[in-house]
Amino acid sequence: MRVKIGGKKEQMRTVSFDATRNEVVLIEQRLLPHTFKLVKTRNFKETAVAITEMIVRGAGAIGATAAYGLAQGAVAFKGRDLGKFQKHLDQVFATLKNSRPTAVDPVNAMIQVRKELNTGETVEEQKSLAVAAAEEFANEDVEHCRQIGEHGIGLIKKGMRILTHCNAGWLAFVDIGSATAPLYAAHRKGVRFHVFCDETRPRCQGASLTAWELAQEGISHQVIADNAAGHLMQRGEIDMVIVGSDRTLGRTGEVANKIGTYTKAVLAGRHGIPFYVAIPISTIDWEMGSGFEIPIEERAESEVLGAWGVDSKGKRAYLRMANPSSGARNPGFDVTPPDLITGIITPSGIFRPKDLWKKRKELGGS
Amino acid sequence: MRVKIGGKKEQMRTVSFDATRNEVVLIEQRLLPHTFKLVKTRNFKETAVAITEMIVRGAGAIGATAAYGLAQGAVAFKGRDLGKFQKHLDQVFATLKNSRPTAVDPVNAMIQVRKELNTGETVEEQKSLAVAAAEEFANEDVEHCRQIGEHGIGLIKKGMRILTHCNAGWLAFVDIGSATAPLYAAHRKGVRFHVFCDETRPRCQGASLTAWELAQEGISHQVIADNAAGHLMQRGEIDMVIVGSDRTLGRTGEVANKIGTYTKAVLAGRHGIPFYVAIPISTIDWEMGSGFEIPIEERAESEVLGAWGVDSKGKRAYLRMANPSSGARNPGFDVTPPDLITGIITPSGIFRPKDLWKKRKELGGS
Repeated sequence: MRVKIGGKKEQMRTVSFDATRNEVVLIEQRLLPHTFKLVKTRNFKETAVAITEMIVRGAGAIGATAAYGLAQGAVAFKGRDLGKFQKHLDQVFATLKNSRPTAVDPVNAMIQVRKELNTGETVEEQKSLAVAAAEEFANEDVEHCRQIGEHGIGLIKKGMRILTHCNAGWLAFVDIGSATAPLYAAHRKGVRFHVFCDETRPRCQGASLTAWELAQEGISHQVIADNAAGHLMQRGEIDMVIVGSDRTLGRTGEVANKIGTYTKAVLAGRHGIPFYVAIPISTIDWEMGSGFEIPIEERAESEVLGAWGVDSKGKRAYLRMANPSSGARNPGFDVTPPDLITGIITPSGIFRPKDLWKKRKELGGS
Repeated sequence: MRVKIGGKKEQMRTVSFDATRNEVVLIEQRLLPHTFKLVKTRNFKETAVAITEMIVRGAGAIGATAAYGLAQGAVAFKGRDLGKFQKHLDQVFATLKNSRPTAVDPVNAMIQVRKELNTGETVEEQKSLAVAAAEEFANEDVEHCRQIGEHGIGLIKKGMRILTHCNAGWLAFVDIGSATAPLYAAHRKGVRFHVFCDETRPRCQGASLTAWELAQEGISHQVIADNAAGHLMQRGEIDMVIVGSDRTLGRTGEVANKIGTYTKAVLAGRHGIPFYVAIPISTIDWEMGSGFEIPIEERAESEVLGAWGVDSKGKRAYLRMANPSSGARNPGFDVTPPDLITGIITPSGIFRPKDLWKKRKELGGS
């Protein structure tokens, strides 16, 4: 995507690799949307810390970051002993894996890179294969998002008013994003439409990250309180909903995503508004048999009791809105059943949620 | 209600009148839940400013404030000339009416007070009738809320988990509140239950005011993001919803209330969870024929783009969460249709929304 930096537009990925300096280059997402800054990690340990501290977040983005981190660790190795090199790689792998222990994407990405580099016969050869494999992983992520855009573009018609929830944009991937892919594809073809960004309390990713992305791209949009979507649908002001997913069950067609997604799906269902979920294939879980098995993370109460933003001096700060003596419940995700989902947009096409299982071979399931 | 002030519990109304000092005494609601402070207005102009500046808010509370303000203005008159006294009252009436031009409650309250005082034959007699009538108006507001509690108490069972939205508590009335009345009545009879307070973005009245009220009363409660209610209902963690209303249409049974109310009603409908609306009779509009005629106020974008609260030093501040270059839509209210409402709890009993019109004589309609 292109980002406005000091009046100029620059081509930018969420994650990239500077091979000359052996640095991973990341957009510092914790400062967005208020400050745009790049972070360059000088070694794999710094890359792991960047994942842990959420400088980078989003399944696709942390996958690519770990892939680059493994290559970065490989390149930094001194010597020609393949045995010692592999032991070093074990350590790099473990460090990056432990940077976000519950996430599967970094592990899957690194397995792919390591498989590639193992085909090399010398340390030098394996190093350059690692870098090439990490680049390939990142490029694949971009290509998958581009394909989601290709398949979804036909859904976006001129003048439509589209609701999004949370951020499944390019900041969560290497580029383009999943839920945003059809929007960016349509906008670049000259289709003009309007996006309502759900604020997405408690962490406000819609108001901050998605709104920032759409502003960079010059797409007409407005932030709304999560409470307002129902009213806008009732008054005929929303034509379509499109969201991402953290985990989609291939067996049942259930979709786990940011808390509040289910509510929007119920509202869309009541008003006969199409509700789409856009996902890369890696998001599909072919094992789990019911959405009720998905563990719903209970996050910190402070997220609900207050908010992070910038104060009148432009300084990042936390504000408490809630009564000081009250506590909170803070489930981070919810599960939307297949009957509320019009279609699932994947790099291989748009599927009804119940058809995922039938098409599992086509979708890479076993 | 009783408020904890410096470790002690004190009996307190949202609005009261100090006849000795001719002062209206108001809880400074803009500082809640972080600071408890009383404001005493010394004359009717200060009382009007208190309404304008939202030191006091909520239909019942501003009605009583205007009633007291009119009496306060009457008492301050010097002389015995009835003609001059009535002219003075015209001015007091106009000042208080203009303090919140779109609200009907201050006007209705003052009409009631003025009708009473006109039965007096001297200025002194009319002054004391005005004070008595204002007290009567406030006491009636309390009595109506008490009756809502009487009728609603049977709905609240031991162990229930009850969702509320926004603040229709005693801070919006003279005392007790509407949506909260059955809760307070049940709790005082020893029934123990749990309340989930919707944060109620953008102004967070649920997280701040309702949570504060429930904390004063010692009722078990937690704040949740507006996005979380659907998930909790899906997992069987909510047994009932109870909200207030800004305007209820007597002809159709439609309920206008804070933005987000409609969403909770749709969710409750999907899950077969009872959805109740608690209102004083004065909230019923017997004229309007459709909820689509209700003008939905578009409020300031800044409410959605940020939030008010207290910073780490305990100082009241505004924080921007949203992308700096993005705008917002901010509808303040929505309309819930009667098919989603289990019952409307009034001081005269609980009615199905469609039955309001049939029972209009009983409910004081014409």
